Amino acid sequence: MIDTPVPHLITARSGPLHHVEEVILNQVALIEAWFRKRWQETPPSITSSVDLRHAGFKLAPVDTNLFPAGFNNLNRDFLPLCIQAAQSVLGDNFPNCTKILILPESHTRNRFYLQSLHVLRDIFVKAGFVVRIGSLDPMLTTATEIALDNGDVLLIEPLERHDTQVQLKDFNPCLLLLNNDLSGGVPEILQGVQQSIQPTAELGWASRLKSSHFQYFREVASEFADLVGLDPWLINPLFTAIDGVDFMAQEGVEGLAAATDTLLASIREKYAQYGITEKPFVAVKADNGTYGMSVMMVHEGAELLQLNRKQRTKMAVSKGSRKVSRVIIQEGVYTFETMPDGAVAEPVVYMIGPFVVGGFYRVHQGRGIDENLNAPGMHFEPLAFAQACNTPQKNRAVLDCPNRFYVYGVIARLAALAAAREIAAIS
Amino acid sequence: MIDTPVPHLITARSGPLHHVEEVILNQVALIEAWFRKRWQETPPSITSSVDLRHAGFKLAPVDTNLFPAGFNNLNRDFLPLCIQAAQSVLGDNFPNCTKILILPESHTRNRFYLQSLHVLRDIFVKAGFVVRIGSLDPMLTTATEIALDNGDVLLIEPLERHDTQVQLKDFNPCLLLLNNDLSGGVPEILQGVQQSIQPTAELGWASRLKSSHFQYFREVASEFADLVGLDPWLINPLFTAIDGVDFMAQEGVEGLAAATDTLLASIREKYAQYGITEKPFVAVKADNGTYGMSVMMVHEGAELLQLNRKQRTKMAVSKGSRKVSRVIIQEGVYTFETMPDGAVAEPVVYMIGPFVVGGFYRVHQGRGIDENLNAPGMHFEPLAFAQACNTPQKNRAVLDCPNRFYVYGVIARLAALAAAREIAAIS
Repeated sequence: MIDTPVPHLITARSGPLHHVEEVILNQVALIEAWFRKRWQETPPSITSSVDLRHAGFKLAPVDTNLFPAGFNNLNRDFLPLCIQAAQSVLGDNFPNCTKILILPESHTRNRFYLQSLHVLRDIFVKAGFVVRIGSLDPMLTTATEIALDNGDVLLIEPLERHDTQVQLKDFNPCLLLLNNDLSGGVPEILQGVQQSIQPTAELGWASRLKSSHFQYFREVASEFADLVGLDPWLINPLFTAIDGVDFMAQEGVEGLAAATDTLLASIREKYAQYGITEKPFVAVKADNGTYGMSVMMVHEGAELLQLNRKQRTKMAVSKGSRKVSRVIIQEGVYTFETMPDGAVAEPVVYMIGPFVVGGFYRVHQGRGIDENLNAPGMHFEPLAFAQACNTPQKNRAVLDCPNRFYVYGVIARLAALAAAREIAAIS
Repeated sequence: MIDTPVPHLITARSGPLHHVEEVILNQVALIEAWFRKRWQETPPSITSSVDLRHAGFKLAPVDTNLFPAGFNNLNRDFLPLCIQAAQSVLGDNFPNCTKILILPESHTRNRFYLQSLHVLRDIFVKAGFVVRIGSLDPMLTTATEIALDNGDVLLIEPLERHDTQVQLKDFNPCLLLLNNDLSGGVPEILQGVQQSIQPTAELGWASRLKSSHFQYFREVASEFADLVGLDPWLINPLFTAIDGVDFMAQEGVEGLAAATDTLLASIREKYAQYGITEKPFVAVKADNGTYGMSVMMVHEGAELLQLNRKQRTKMAVSKGSRKVSRVIIQEGVYTFETMPDGAVAEPVVYMIGPFVVGGFYRVHQGRGIDENLNAPGMHFEPLAFAQACNTPQKNRAVLDCPNRFYVYGVIARLAALAAAREIAAIS
């Protein structure tokens, strides 16, 4: 097996390097047994993806998405793994299901998203299901064929509501596979539907708070840290949430600045404890935001008091033109993974049910190690993980591909477990 | 994805070429839904492998093994698929299991088998279990380290019986993973054990009959053929079984010859129906044999009346020096898969639970297309399947790698389903 290039983890100026990896790789059986138990208590979402940041001394999730839109960025070699995972998850949870209706995002002119949708469909087709695609967009009223860059064609059909069911004209699905983050709220056509919807529509961004997810993650991280003997901070970004912020009217911003300074002080304390000489920073985000909108990186609270009109506008409105009033302040985690040319690279891990099925790096040219790489208009080059995330190898170095990917997969699964608890809490 | 070389399927002189493939590839969703239902009724063995023969007009299993010994021959690239399959199967069936004890074959000087054992162990270790190996060989009384060709070391430990449990000195497993075909019968140390043993010890070759397996397979093949609209003969080798044969004393051999001629006549009829001009042949095997011992290929019954002493001796004794008295006569299926140099190649498909996790070809130089390639002392070169068996591709030719491997996987799973019914019948 050849190790294709992966980002180099540059050495932080100090701190306990690769400690997280070592602790995890030494306890694979314990960790996997623990996950098996946890998934029995709260089953995982059918799909999820987790953005990670790797600072060498710290490896933590910064975002968890139940409706991933980058399946096209996964390594094609691991399609069999995706297919098998889909078979396992559906076989366990919907043993009699034969027909799946995918409900995608409506922005059907995004060619990257369409490719992701095509791969998602392909996974479930090859897993042995009849799969069709129904649009949540009320403007789509006739079946529409969309040609993809690679020559494939996607057929997207208008959704019909019949009583408490949605379906296509001649297709009554056993399962609705939601791949739309519902930023604009649960659309009318889905309200009160009495069908299996996976992942649950109740965790669309209209009703989901990042702070709620990270509260569950804090719990999960602390239990996991107890299990393996690790300071939970090494995998958990500190955060706090503030309500009643109006960036345009400049209301609540002083409180936000104060909370930011308090959080920065806590991070500074942890940095001191570990002898880390980097400058602490936080990400300030809309608590119910997604797609990297309404995000800014802040090194001290005062910066928030000095926003210009353009910055305030950017922070004030989230995806779907929703006004931001609740804000999460989250510890920033440095990206110390870089490509040979200096471009920074952030891992994104993909899961189907409890199985880590692959991932990719967002590789971004000319962006700083403390900046947000998932922002609107941001261009990144995907670099698929060269190997699977489920083959830890005792006799190899902790940073060797299979081991590094395995550790990514463990941290990502902790975030997926936090999401599973979010789901259980609202069900 | 590059298509690495696979055997060429030479054109049979006649017959409905690639009909089986076409019928199967056109009905993937139907077939997968059917398998999901069938596995609910009778769960599959935790491990299995199936030998196939591909004659172009016919693709059929000729042997099903619940204790496969060629994991080392699988494509290393599909280790992640094996690991995930193991996680899925154990998660479903033994959710609280953390410790696995493998019970291997005792011939610990076979370096190929030891490599297979190492891979089998590795799959379950990487799947997140504590795995150790306990020997059924009463001669092994101290923990023994065995160095493998690739530098790895296997630790094989003496098995201890305590009351109704077997274990190692300091290791009490939740699951016994049997990788010994128990040709010599269930050893004393396993008798009356009250632990989970997978695959069941009751299907060791001491108590299992090939004819019983193929009786179940005939049922399965007929149901499947009904489902997809196929003549079951195209996937099912005809057979008959005869008791009371003593090759050494030359008793019962005339009856065997007569039954052989009857079976050959039935095959001739099918050949005529499909315009196949090859010469029919049958395999005569010990009904409870394995490892290709006590097997001969016969083109007419009279051959059985003219065996020389050496041939009779070969047929009279099966693995573990057991006397052969029950004989199965099975329709021979031509091997029309050949390498560029003319060597014949037979596919062997590997499964973990319901999942096809890979396979390989037994490639044999200088052996005929109607000979048995799995015989003692037979040398074969394994050629790992280049791709997975779960990615059928509608837009590609029926004989393209992914499609061909998918079809192998379907036929192999039919044989695994027959084995599942065998297991259910004795449980």
